[in-house]
Amino acid sequence: MNILRVNMNNRQIYLEPIPEQLMLLGNRSLIGEILTNEVPASCHPLGEKNKLILAGGPLAGLGISSADRLSAGAKSPLTGGIKEANAGGIAVQYMAKHGIRAIIIEGKPNADSTFLLRINNNQFELMVAEELKGMGNYEVAQVLRQKYGEKTAIITIGPAGEKELNTAGIFASDRSGIPSRACARGGLGAVMGSKKLKAIVIENNGDYKIPVVNMEDFKKARKKYLQVLQENPQTSEIYTKYGTASALATVNKIGGLPTNNYRYGSFEKAEQINGDTLYDLIEARGGEGLHSHACMSGCIIKCSNVVPDNDGKAIVTPLEFETLCLLGSNLGIGDIDFTARLNYLCNDLGIDTIEVGAAIGVALEAGVASFGDQEAVYDFIDRDIRNNTLLGRVLGQGAAMTGKVLGIKRIPVVKGQAMAAHEPRAIKGMSITYAMSPMGADHTAAVTLRAPVDHKDPKGQMELSRQIQVTVAAYDSLGFCMFVIPAIGKQPEHAVDLINAVYGLNLQYDWIENYGKKVLLTERNYNKLAGLTDAHDRLPEYMLEEKLPPSNAVSDIPLADYERFWNDEFWDIKDFSYNGEGHNDKQDEHISNC
Amino acid sequence: MNILRVNMNNRQIYLEPIPEQLMLLGNRSLIGEILTNEVPASCHPLGEKNKLILAGGPLAGLGISSADRLSAGAKSPLTGGIKEANAGGIAVQYMAKHGIRAIIIEGKPNADSTFLLRINNNQFELMVAEELKGMGNYEVAQVLRQKYGEKTAIITIGPAGEKELNTAGIFASDRSGIPSRACARGGLGAVMGSKKLKAIVIENNGDYKIPVVNMEDFKKARKKYLQVLQENPQTSEIYTKYGTASALATVNKIGGLPTNNYRYGSFEKAEQINGDTLYDLIEARGGEGLHSHACMSGCIIKCSNVVPDNDGKAIVTPLEFETLCLLGSNLGIGDIDFTARLNYLCNDLGIDTIEVGAAIGVALEAGVASFGDQEAVYDFIDRDIRNNTLLGRVLGQGAAMTGKVLGIKRIPVVKGQAMAAHEPRAIKGMSITYAMSPMGADHTAAVTLRAPVDHKDPKGQMELSRQIQVTVAAYDSLGFCMFVIPAIGKQPEHAVDLINAVYGLNLQYDWIENYGKKVLLTERNYNKLAGLTDAHDRLPEYMLEEKLPPSNAVSDIPLADYERFWNDEFWDIKDFSYNGEGHNDKQDEHISNC
Repeated sequence: MNILRVNMNNRQIYLEPIPEQLMLLGNRSLIGEILTNEVPASCHPLGEKNKLILAGGPLAGLGISSADRLSAGAKSPLTGGIKEANAGGIAVQYMAKHGIRAIIIEGKPNADSTFLLRINNNQFELMVAEELKGMGNYEVAQVLRQKYGEKTAIITIGPAGEKELNTAGIFASDRSGIPSRACARGGLGAVMGSKKLKAIVIENNGDYKIPVVNMEDFKKARKKYLQVLQENPQTSEIYTKYGTASALATVNKIGGLPTNNYRYGSFEKAEQINGDTLYDLIEARGGEGLHSHACMSGCIIKCSNVVPDNDGKAIVTPLEFETLCLLGSNLGIGDIDFTARLNYLCNDLGIDTIEVGAAIGVALEAGVASFGDQEAVYDFIDRDIRNNTLLGRVLGQGAAMTGKVLGIKRIPVVKGQAMAAHEPRAIKGMSITYAMSPMGADHTAAVTLRAPVDHKDPKGQMELSRQIQVTVAAYDSLGFCMFVIPAIGKQPEHAVDLINAVYGLNLQYDWIENYGKKVLLTERNYNKLAGLTDAHDRLPEYMLEEKLPPSNAVSDIPLADYERFWNDEFWDIKDFSYNGEGHNDKQDEHISNC
Repeated sequence: MNILRVNMNNRQIYLEPIPEQLMLLGNRSLIGEILTNEVPASCHPLGEKNKLILAGGPLAGLGISSADRLSAGAKSPLTGGIKEANAGGIAVQYMAKHGIRAIIIEGKPNADSTFLLRINNNQFELMVAEELKGMGNYEVAQVLRQKYGEKTAIITIGPAGEKELNTAGIFASDRSGIPSRACARGGLGAVMGSKKLKAIVIENNGDYKIPVVNMEDFKKARKKYLQVLQENPQTSEIYTKYGTASALATVNKIGGLPTNNYRYGSFEKAEQINGDTLYDLIEARGGEGLHSHACMSGCIIKCSNVVPDNDGKAIVTPLEFETLCLLGSNLGIGDIDFTARLNYLCNDLGIDTIEVGAAIGVALEAGVASFGDQEAVYDFIDRDIRNNTLLGRVLGQGAAMTGKVLGIKRIPVVKGQAMAAHEPRAIKGMSITYAMSPMGADHTAAVTLRAPVDHKDPKGQMELSRQIQVTVAAYDSLGFCMFVIPAIGKQPEHAVDLINAVYGLNLQYDWIENYGKKVLLTERNYNKLAGLTDAHDRLPEYMLEEKLPPSNAVSDIPLADYERFWNDEFWDIKDFSYNGEGHNDKQDEHISNC
């Protein structure tokens, strides 16, 4: 496996074999390692010294369900720290066929050109592609598939990325060529935009054979893994039928559904936008509508959907819980069709629906328009962000900047990044997730919603979120979709058996746990060097004091729990190395002590 | 001496004797101590938990030339760390007559009222004063002097402070009742605005007698001190004749005069705005024009001026070097009259000319208007900031926010605060001052311009700036104007003799040095708790790389010097306490070791 290094200064491309000690790294862990070694934490996120990393995992391309996630990573222009965001789609499967674990985009062209990177037939080409400049993501995908064939994977940024807005994500195409799988968060699209790289097209003609050391063991492990996914109701039924929208009714019932800029915890129109309603709407309208839709080949969870309009024509794919909240309840809007159209618009412009939804929520609180005013909200994106008006630029830089400019103190962000649809006052584990994750307020760092605990009880939430953060960090790094965690999160043997078989290793099962810890410690260390401290590991002040109706919860997890998060023996993995060298004895000891 | 504590929650006022251990603290040191003890570093700067401190020094009210500065302090909404900004004027002299060393404004009223604090005849009254709402500073002063008499000192915020803009300062009146002495920097006016306190009026009828333990020694010391000021050419001639504008020609010659958003280091129209030209203009026009103008009673330096228009009518008082640069050369404007009118406008709205000038410079770089476009620049303040348009709010939040919103990477700020008129690439000591001062990029922390060194040589600049920062921190804390430092900065005996006489002490002369160090360490510690780290103690990336014409200098002080700034034995004052207790032996030892 190789790393493809694209230098935008001299337009040279280098194919480097991945070093032995990085062989088991992928996605999030590889991003942490490359940033630590190659990108000064003090650098300007949109300057020459930052690097954009696009990475898959060590199990990619092997036909393992939900193990081909694409991660994007860089120093974030939004948080000022390390950022990894991942998405589904087929890009990593195609990269694997060319023997590529990761692409590193570095430097910055002098000229104000627009570039396209083409990966074709094991060849790599960086081309000037002025015709793509300013183009929406959907058109980019269409144009590139027309030119390079239907069987291509596309990674692209919209106009928002070209404008280097902090809400800009990186978008990858799904099995149908639709570029709507978003590495959404942290302004990574702006980093790609700063490199003047508009898109990457990866053709389906690589002939790299991924070496599998013990093929028989591998096939056995893969089969067992698949079986576990199929037997778990969350991964085989709930996600498959309702997708992420399944969470909305639960969250609303708990009183944790952000409504009107995080002012309320439940929404009077929640029923109009929940998972059941979405399911029924897709069923009733038919046409191009789909639930149980897989974004990448081979995925059996199929959490995605295609939302059809009244005529059965697709509005958008996929429509997720977080978007239904941030571009729905959080703006006082209870209208699936409208939110779906807004989602399409965001995908086309290349915008993170969470960050922009939170930013608009803050702007509505400032009185720029009223909550529930769909026309105004649509204009903010279609008129203002698209046309780069001053309001568009303010909103396009995210919720924190919007709040500061407009003088709003209720800004639902941590480390400058907006929270995502799980109110941390009502779902208290999310207080820890949002506050402590090196990624800024990012629900994907650890969703505590499904844990069998009293979400209103502050006790134990720190330990709960911390443990999930470790698990997620590991699975994120191995290229798995986080939705496999309900099935295999507590059964690390499945992932370890797969790794052992592919790489001919004999890793212990607690390798996963230590791996996740190392990922988080690496990220935390990078953030420290970038100037993020304990002071940044806290919720906004108002959430500690302002009661959230209707439950009137506040975020009341003791400060000591925050202070203890990074500071106890939990993190003692000093002999651990990612590739399993020199620590197995230690692990055995650890196990016997438990 | 007392502290006047005003609680805006319950509208109660408390007069507390200043604790013995704080007796020698004032201005900057008192602010550091009160913030450390009373204001959580994590608090929202515009929330209930922040406190605004207005303080004079331990030598105030004693008829000592230039020793009655007013400091304002709080956690800064601009830098996120500790902030102290000081000004001249007569407020502290009047406070001293009421026996008040400092006023602490704490809490936050629930109602959206506008308050006035009145100090009269040793009485203290907090009144609702809706009639002052939205009023410009000049009118506030006029109205209050009309109502409460000509012999009042006024401290006020303009509309910018009420709007809680980060460029908002706090303005104090001079001997003529003109409220143009600005505690300008760090958004302290926004903190006062967040407390809904529009103004403080202090009448000249207090009858507090400041105790002086050894009156004879005191008079002798004061006389000697005055003599030293009178004998120094900087304090008795240059400042007196040309004021701060005297620096402009020198700085321009060195190639360190920020021009067109810090793009160039010298300005083709520099001669039109330098100290000589300003002096000649005042001389030629006569009328209300003045140089050698004293802002506070008894000051013999008299660095201030009154700039008259063609008809001899005052445009503004005072017009300073930093304003001539930031609202002049930095915007491509070489027109004293225009900059003076802009300065008046800023004073009236209650805006820091440095921060807003830097913000407009960034906006011009983004193409919002052209450099040199006076009409546009005037409109940005008079139309946009005054009327709270979106552009006004962006600019009003300062240079960092303006740059981020508009997508500009060349933003001349450290810790979110704009640099002030000394280009750190050409005057390299200012690289250290701007980067390392706990106050953010603030020239008043340590101007290295007058030091007899090669400003282009990176060697030794760290030690130079650090030593000046210590000296300034001490004199700032004792209530002295920084302009006494050329005369007595290296002769600490004058200040120590004054303190010893007034308080009946026997402090050693190195008390000043250690005092300054303790002030800086206290501020640094507060900033650490607030989340500012070594990563924030650095210049913006572009100044390390982009050559500054015409000298083509870059900021090339070795990183090791920055890293060493806080980390060597220089700071070893562990036995020092501000009031001289328990450390004299140590000091003697220290002296004998030298």
